[in-house]
Amino acid sequence: MKSHIDELAVFGGPPLFATPRPIGQLSTPDVENYLEVLKESFDARHLTNDGPVVRKLEKKLAAFHEVSHCICLANAGLGLMMLMQLFSGGKRGEVIMPAFSYRGLPHFAQWAGQMPCFCDVDPQTHFLGVKSVEKSITERTTSILGVCNFNDPGDIDGLTRIARNHAVPVFLDSVYAVGSTYKNKILGSFTDAEVYSLHATKLLNGFEGGYITTNDDELAQKLVWQRNFTIPGLRPCTVHFESIVGINAKLNEMHAAMAILSIDMIDDIIARNFQRFDAYRRGLETISGLSLLPYSQKEKVNYQMAVVEIDDKFPLNRDQMLTLLRAEGCGISPYYSPPLHLSEHCPPGLKVSDLPTTQNLAKKYLQLPVGELVSTEDIENICQLFFFAQKWDGEISARLKRKVS
Amino acid sequence: MKSHIDELAVFGGPPLFATPRPIGQLSTPDVENYLEVLKESFDARHLTNDGPVVRKLEKKLAAFHEVSHCICLANAGLGLMMLMQLFSGGKRGEVIMPAFSYRGLPHFAQWAGQMPCFCDVDPQTHFLGVKSVEKSITERTTSILGVCNFNDPGDIDGLTRIARNHAVPVFLDSVYAVGSTYKNKILGSFTDAEVYSLHATKLLNGFEGGYITTNDDELAQKLVWQRNFTIPGLRPCTVHFESIVGINAKLNEMHAAMAILSIDMIDDIIARNFQRFDAYRRGLETISGLSLLPYSQKEKVNYQMAVVEIDDKFPLNRDQMLTLLRAEGCGISPYYSPPLHLSEHCPPGLKVSDLPTTQNLAKKYLQLPVGELVSTEDIENICQLFFFAQKWDGEISARLKRKVS
Repeated sequence: MKSHIDELAVFGGPPLFATPRPIGQLSTPDVENYLEVLKESFDARHLTNDGPVVRKLEKKLAAFHEVSHCICLANAGLGLMMLMQLFSGGKRGEVIMPAFSYRGLPHFAQWAGQMPCFCDVDPQTHFLGVKSVEKSITERTTSILGVCNFNDPGDIDGLTRIARNHAVPVFLDSVYAVGSTYKNKILGSFTDAEVYSLHATKLLNGFEGGYITTNDDELAQKLVWQRNFTIPGLRPCTVHFESIVGINAKLNEMHAAMAILSIDMIDDIIARNFQRFDAYRRGLETISGLSLLPYSQKEKVNYQMAVVEIDDKFPLNRDQMLTLLRAEGCGISPYYSPPLHLSEHCPPGLKVSDLPTTQNLAKKYLQLPVGELVSTEDIENICQLFFFAQKWDGEISARLKRKVS
Repeated sequence: MKSHIDELAVFGGPPLFATPRPIGQLSTPDVENYLEVLKESFDARHLTNDGPVVRKLEKKLAAFHEVSHCICLANAGLGLMMLMQLFSGGKRGEVIMPAFSYRGLPHFAQWAGQMPCFCDVDPQTHFLGVKSVEKSITERTTSILGVCNFNDPGDIDGLTRIARNHAVPVFLDSVYAVGSTYKNKILGSFTDAEVYSLHATKLLNGFEGGYITTNDDELAQKLVWQRNFTIPGLRPCTVHFESIVGINAKLNEMHAAMAILSIDMIDDIIARNFQRFDAYRRGLETISGLSLLPYSQKEKVNYQMAVVEIDDKFPLNRDQMLTLLRAEGCGISPYYSPPLHLSEHCPPGLKVSDLPTTQNLAKKYLQLPVGELVSTEDIENICQLFFFAQKWDGEISARLKRKVS
């Protein structure tokens, strides 16, 4: 443990972690198991384009999410682009989305010929605020994208009701809520479609990849076509596809093989996530001014992330702690900050209004290291750094200021 | 060999090939070699986001193409979308492209906020006709996309000259010309950028994947940012990026590991391709009305494809032969037919004019089975089918007509 502020890495001391501790899940199955599954597809010489392992994965994921269809994709971002494009019917318009969210969202809208329309979020769940959405629906609205965050899925029913009242398609980015429930039913079959990721940093790891779940038979057919340049493939498509813009968003067998192994590990992964989350809770609960963003008590959650709120009672602010912890080898970020409407990811020229809840939330949170590469001992050491920072706040603050100037 | 037309699969006989013979390259390295390379990245736990194997591949490909930069991507289609978006500078406009080409092209333009502007091609090289392009350049033109076909790279200098005269960005889809030369220099450093594929059916096999080559330092920096949601990554970016629309187009380590092994095999692959091409040449040269689309005599080529022209002297037409061969287990297609401006891939409502050379070419060609899953014996058998069809043309034609009606 550090005993003097000269020992802090930000002031030239040796970092706590020689190898950075990340904020992603990064679970892996047994390598030998994986290579065995892979060798099968190698020998079958069917590596891309809707292969047998992809189909097996789609079946498995549909069962896991209790939904009719799962369409696997090269990544989740392409899935969001595809849905925005399909829901627009080829019309240029706007997609309603939160600004307290992932930086890819406004980019994906633009690829789909849409502009983002940022709405404010609920202060507890961080899900789209139903009233803010209702005020923002116009003739230009082509769809509504709700984002289910790791901590709480949010008012999905409320959002769906508004969307249905206005006859606007509504879909969910559920990437961080995989395995979580809403009203005690696993996510996957809510709204018109949900999008998930298989990136290595997410709960289900296919190295990279994504998928869409839906109960809409017609939408599922369109997506299968769309992901392969609208080429009629092995599966029949009975729907009209004139307004589908095709893309290459195919997932291939090697990713699917990895993801299949991942699904079977999910309960163990969540159990280990809980242990890490609990270690942070125990380590930080006695420090005034710090509190972990709580998980919903009503739902099953995946304990994937640990996000700490730093309020005025803590003597250093969020950005000072970010600087300090990064120097120690924590590969961390502020949580959704700056918000999208005030960031470089906001399309140039887009007129945006104030989003008070979003702007307030964006100041408070720091995402802490989690996932399979972080041990509970690492977490104890990180919590000790907060203690240390609290104790030496005056000197640290002064030296950080001198460093900047 | 078939001795009676009842034995033709299209009329109920057993197919020549129980397993379909494809038109893709489908080469694979030794599985053990591959799994060894993969295990290294597995152990390093750096599987995505600009990892060490991707960087090694980029260096190797830049050397192979004699070009300053190679930027690896999840697939070639995303690369075309990215370039069309960057070259547009965010302005809605048109991308000039051939209609005698791959069906993805007009879709990619639409994702980039552009409409395709189809031009006619040169009757020999099938590359964009320089005069047709010059007439089509307007204020709406945001870029020009030339496609280098497998048989001949085409008049790249002519196209570049026109583009420079009009100050319009110009780039190449060189997917089918990988390893080929233009004026005795390997492709990769021509125009503003070139796009290549690493799909399993292409010469270099990374299961799936693609890359862009360029000598433009600034463009290379933009692409590195763009492929990862414009997130500043490990590499510095000194350029302004306001008009870059980000996307997830990252290639990951497992694809890169496969592609690296593929590059070292390329001379052997091309040698085997030549043997297959030569087997078709010998098998078909004595049949009146058939001729293989010739490769350029002036350049190094990759002999990746075998495309036969069926003219009026052959008693059955192209589409009849397609039906007949498909039934026998040839997984073949007509070559770029229907052309894009007359196909379902043409964006709804787009006004297009006649493209006489394109329309004529699109009627003539059949793509024959090639690649590592096709033996010279298979090719001899396919050539025998042409002989057989020529001999029994009247009866076959009559029975095909009865079958349809």
